[in-house]
Amino acid sequence: MSISARNKIQGQISGIQAGEVMSLVTVQAGENRLVAAITRQAIDELGLAQGDAVTVVIKATEVMLLK
Amino acid sequence: MSISARNKIQGQISGIQAGEVMSLVTVQAGENRLVAAITRQAIDELGLAQGDAVTVVIKATEVMLLK
Amino acid sequence: MSISARNKIQGQISGIQAGEVMSLVTVQAGENRLVAAITRQAIDELGLAQGDAVTVVIKATEVMLLK
Amino acid sequence: MSISARNKIQGQISGIQAGEVMSLVTVQAGENRLVAAITRQAIDELGLAQGDAVTVVIKATEVMLLK
Amino acid sequence: MSISARNKIQGQISGIQAGEVMSLVTVQAGENRLVAAITRQAIDELGLAQGDAVTVVIKATEVMLLK
Amino acid sequence: MSISARNKIQGQISGIQAGEVMSLVTVQAGENRLVAAITRQAIDELGLAQGDAVTVVIKATEVMLLK
Repeated sequence: MSISARNKIQGQISGIQAGEVMSLVTVQAGENRLVAAITRQAIDELGLAQGDAVTVVIKATEVMLLK
Repeated sequence: MSISARNKIQGQISGIQAGEVMSLVTVQAGENRLVAAITRQAIDELGLAQGDAVTVVIKATEVMLLK
Repeated sequence: MSISARNKIQGQISGIQAGEVMSLVTVQAGENRLVAAITRQAIDELGLAQGDAVTVVIKATEVMLLK
Repeated sequence: MSISARNKIQGQISGIQAGEVMSLVTVQAGENRLVAAITRQAIDELGLAQGDAVTVVIKATEVMLLK
Repeated sequence: MSISARNKIQGQISGIQAGEVMSLVTVQAGENRLVAAITRQAIDELGLAQGDAVTVVIKATEVMLLK
Repeated sequence: MSISARNKIQGQISGIQAGEVMSLVTVQAGENRLVAAITRQAIDELGLAQGDAVTVVIKATEVMLLK
């Protein structure tokens, strides 16, 4: 199965700050540190933990450029 | 000036597909190929062109994880 | 593999309006008609066509309520 | 008054997890369970409560497809 | 009926650039010029035209700050 | 440096509700009250405080119209 989202970046979870409703997951992807604000429910359902290999997924319409 | 968006990735524009209203900009960032769907208006206003060094900006609430 | 996005709805593609850069895909999901604005590139890469069974995926932070 | 957002799904609130800033609202829409991450402020202002009939609203540019 | 989205700004449509799938609508709101990328389908369904009084609606999770 | 996002509104922070992970920042922009749900991390990193002059930034693809 493939998703229509254009951006997929491989990385490893380097930190999880789990709040009541929302959580902040930090992913190290090569030299980039990416941050995902996802629900606490998703953290629990996927069993996300530090060190996990994950794919960061971002829809192209959400990406901006700075020049 | 700094933006509140948590994700900033340095890269270089490797391709621009300019449509009438929306455009697709491909950015090579290390080993990752990122894709931004932005307005044609933004392409013109920022003068974006192949080879330009840009920063890809993504708000943390737009980032998903796949595991 | 599972995605952190909270909303997954099964449906069948009932129409595709393919533009130059962006495309509009209509999905019939039970009694609901859903509409996705995705890149033409995604249409081509996933080989999306009328009648295909697909899962509509939406991040919880993108969902609003009207009451 | 009509909103430009393409996706409108009728449902009934089946659960609210109210956090300090963000809240998670679960809506049963036919056989689908939808989840909205909205502000606590919106919960209070709209007076959202379990059992309320609501319309789930999602902009087409936020919808992805998995095939 | 009220929507959970936190940002609602009154304005007047000052321009529409209608593409095949996506359209760009410019709204003058006091001294601010706002731009919405919405589907052509929405333009047609709402009958949007220059001079129309509209409310610009934006979910709080989509808003960034620059300082 | 310029960002591709089409919407930039000048304002002044009139309130911050800082949660554990997410925070709600209210910005007064002329006669409009805007609300941004951003990470607590961003609040801290940018040193956002009541009274600060800020620019509200919103991507055009996130803007809806109500008529």
